[in-house]
Amino acid sequence: MSLIVQKYGGSSVADAESIKRVAKRIIDTKRGGNEVVVAVSAMGDTTDDLIDLAHEVAPMPDPREFDMLVTTGERVSMALLAMAIKGLGYDARSYTGSQAGMITDSKHGDARIVDVTPVRVREALDDGAIAIVAGFQGFNRDSRDITTLGRGGSDTTAVALAAALDADVCEIYSDVDGVFTADPRIVPKARKLDHITSEEMLELAANGAKVLHIRAVEYARRQGVTLHVRSSFSTNPGTVVYNPDREEEFTVEEPMIAGVAHDLSQAKITIVGVPDVPGKAAEIFSLVADQGANVDMIVQNVSSATSGTTDISFTLPQQVSARVAQALETHRDEIGYASLAHDDQIGKVSLVGSGMRTNIGVSARLFEALRDAGINMDMISTSEIRISIVVRADLVAEVANAIHTAFELDGEDEAVVYAGTGR
Amino acid sequence: MSLIVQKYGGSSVADAESIKRVAKRIIDTKRGGNEVVVAVSAMGDTTDDLIDLAHEVAPMPDPREFDMLVTTGERVSMALLAMAIKGLGYDARSYTGSQAGMITDSKHGDARIVDVTPVRVREALDDGAIAIVAGFQGFNRDSRDITTLGRGGSDTTAVALAAALDADVCEIYSDVDGVFTADPRIVPKARKLDHITSEEMLELAANGAKVLHIRAVEYARRQGVTLHVRSSFSTNPGTVVYNPDREEEFTVEEPMIAGVAHDLSQAKITIVGVPDVPGKAAEIFSLVADQGANVDMIVQNVSSATSGTTDISFTLPQQVSARVAQALETHRDEIGYASLAHDDQIGKVSLVGSGMRTNIGVSARLFEALRDAGINMDMISTSEIRISIVVRADLVAEVANAIHTAFELDGEDEAVVYAGTGR
Repeated sequence: MSLIVQKYGGSSVADAESIKRVAKRIIDTKRGGNEVVVAVSAMGDTTDDLIDLAHEVAPMPDPREFDMLVTTGERVSMALLAMAIKGLGYDARSYTGSQAGMITDSKHGDARIVDVTPVRVREALDDGAIAIVAGFQGFNRDSRDITTLGRGGSDTTAVALAAALDADVCEIYSDVDGVFTADPRIVPKARKLDHITSEEMLELAANGAKVLHIRAVEYARRQGVTLHVRSSFSTNPGTVVYNPDREEEFTVEEPMIAGVAHDLSQAKITIVGVPDVPGKAAEIFSLVADQGANVDMIVQNVSSATSGTTDISFTLPQQVSARVAQALETHRDEIGYASLAHDDQIGKVSLVGSGMRTNIGVSARLFEALRDAGINMDMISTSEIRISIVVRADLVAEVANAIHTAFELDGEDEAVVYAGTGR
Repeated sequence: MSLIVQKYGGSSVADAESIKRVAKRIIDTKRGGNEVVVAVSAMGDTTDDLIDLAHEVAPMPDPREFDMLVTTGERVSMALLAMAIKGLGYDARSYTGSQAGMITDSKHGDARIVDVTPVRVREALDDGAIAIVAGFQGFNRDSRDITTLGRGGSDTTAVALAAALDADVCEIYSDVDGVFTADPRIVPKARKLDHITSEEMLELAANGAKVLHIRAVEYARRQGVTLHVRSSFSTNPGTVVYNPDREEEFTVEEPMIAGVAHDLSQAKITIVGVPDVPGKAAEIFSLVADQGANVDMIVQNVSSATSGTTDISFTLPQQVSARVAQALETHRDEIGYASLAHDDQIGKVSLVGSGMRTNIGVSARLFEALRDAGINMDMISTSEIRISIVVRADLVAEVANAIHTAFELDGEDEAVVYAGTGR
């Protein structure tokens, strides 16, 4: 008998009908002779509605009360889901984050899991019942207060339960069929991957792929949990995200390249004429860090021998880029640079694949493809299994498609595109 | 420094604006130099909406899951209320039923409070904070499951907290100004009472007055909690419901009659020609009890010497009356009665007043009033401080007004009538 943890996003439990449909699906899994634990998100837009209410009553809602408020969304969906299952004649019990033993630190709004003690969940399974757990939420033992896990929280709940219960697989259900070689919305010929290494999945998620939250992937990789990303709207197999320990099962037919990710949420700042003396970079980036900006790519030109100055470019999230540019302007004289350029009309396209390690010439092939397409790159950065380039925002789709074709990732027919994905 | 427990019904926290208004009111009480504990109901129709959802996913929702579901309503309102208070610069902390130590038995949907251990509420007060507690809900220690207290649950939560914290007063806020000498919706000249004994309040509540739930009044009387029923839409003093131990403070001007209550939710069953032999009544009412019917009034005519039979009439809730009539029909032969009449077009009007004990001729005065109004009574029953009569439903308003006038309860001007009252 296998133990399967399933996670259903908000779009999969948006209304009573969807909840009943998901209930049937859970029962099918149970009838397949498995033990089933389900982590569920709040119904559709419930959480957003609660957040709006909070801001109506208080400009800056208290974090503790905010968590108490937003966690009600998952409590509603988990209770309804358990009712629906019981209504169909199968035993089910719902548990809040604290009842399920999701122990976290006390950082309200973005708490980290410190321990998972799913005693009651285990009891329910031993009684032959299906356990439904509220996603996204936890409990701090010291303050005895309810906490939330931040973005992608329900995925993390599912992975944490799968790890603690030593589940055979953690199925992440949303409204997309799985992990694609690229975002079908901009690359029509994107193919669904049957499997991908957790390492590649991490790079894709970190570089703009939205299907899985990076935190859940990290947790799964660290805990050796195998993920299965699939759609709750079809019974098609999705994409298996596996860890190094299971590589022999899959590597047989492992492709060199996993996929192409794109990210339009970054901006670029270029500082021209920075004195090429030790400590300048440190001076600049400590200033950037003070603004709470998370820098992604950094490129420094070769110093010009004549002027003794260099240019430094880096990318950072658009939300903070204006603030950072302002701070740099303010310290212009003490840093001693010539001019500053701030551009938020950029996009990043990344090619990801474990095969890069053993295959030489990947970057050469990539640059040829861009040359043939007449694309001019702004920045380049590489990791062991990834090559990322920054181009003008309006070129991102063209670049992604060109690379996708160059590396023979194109599928036969166009991929189906869905509305959006649940939390 | 006084400790004041306040309860706000659903209509008082129906939307963000109302919540902010209530928050200001709570802060005013706090600034008055008091410790404040608040029990709050779910916003407006939230609970009904959740109940509808439950029935959409399952015809007969599981009781445990149902309680888990509906208790989210109070969690939302308590968190929003705490946020609103903090937003105005005062410390506030919200607590769920279990966090507030509302320990109940395990009867889901109608749990009884077995212990109240408001340790965290007390801690909050000691820290100078306002404590907000989710009404209507509790926690069963053995099953570690969430329970609900049934109808009027939030009033009961407030009273239970007031008793456990030895509060000076428990203020019950709704959208009516207090307890009236009659329902202003049918007796325009009804007056608001400044105070009333808990004993009289119990009789009024038991006989149709809706302003307070009888269970909360019983709890307050048993625990010696003084209630103050008032409106959250005005600052007028409401009605104080006091216990025997405080009678000397009020009896000075205690009126003979407290008020007139009416009840249109009952039906009447009359069994004609019942053999007047010992044990028949027992036979009939055990049958009625088997149907889960709660009998209110019972009247047995004097036996007719010639036939050796008697007629028995009794009132019971309309929801069950048809079922009971059916059961009696089925056992007609073994009971051996002649015929049965079932009438759900009746109403009960009750006159309540502690003064009845010491004032003779109250019933005579009542019957004169009805005679003068040309009203024919179906049934009469009396308690130490109450006289109830049953009349045709369409006569209830006329009867209530006639009695109200006859006992000089009429006020100068017409009372304001509000929409309805929150849970």
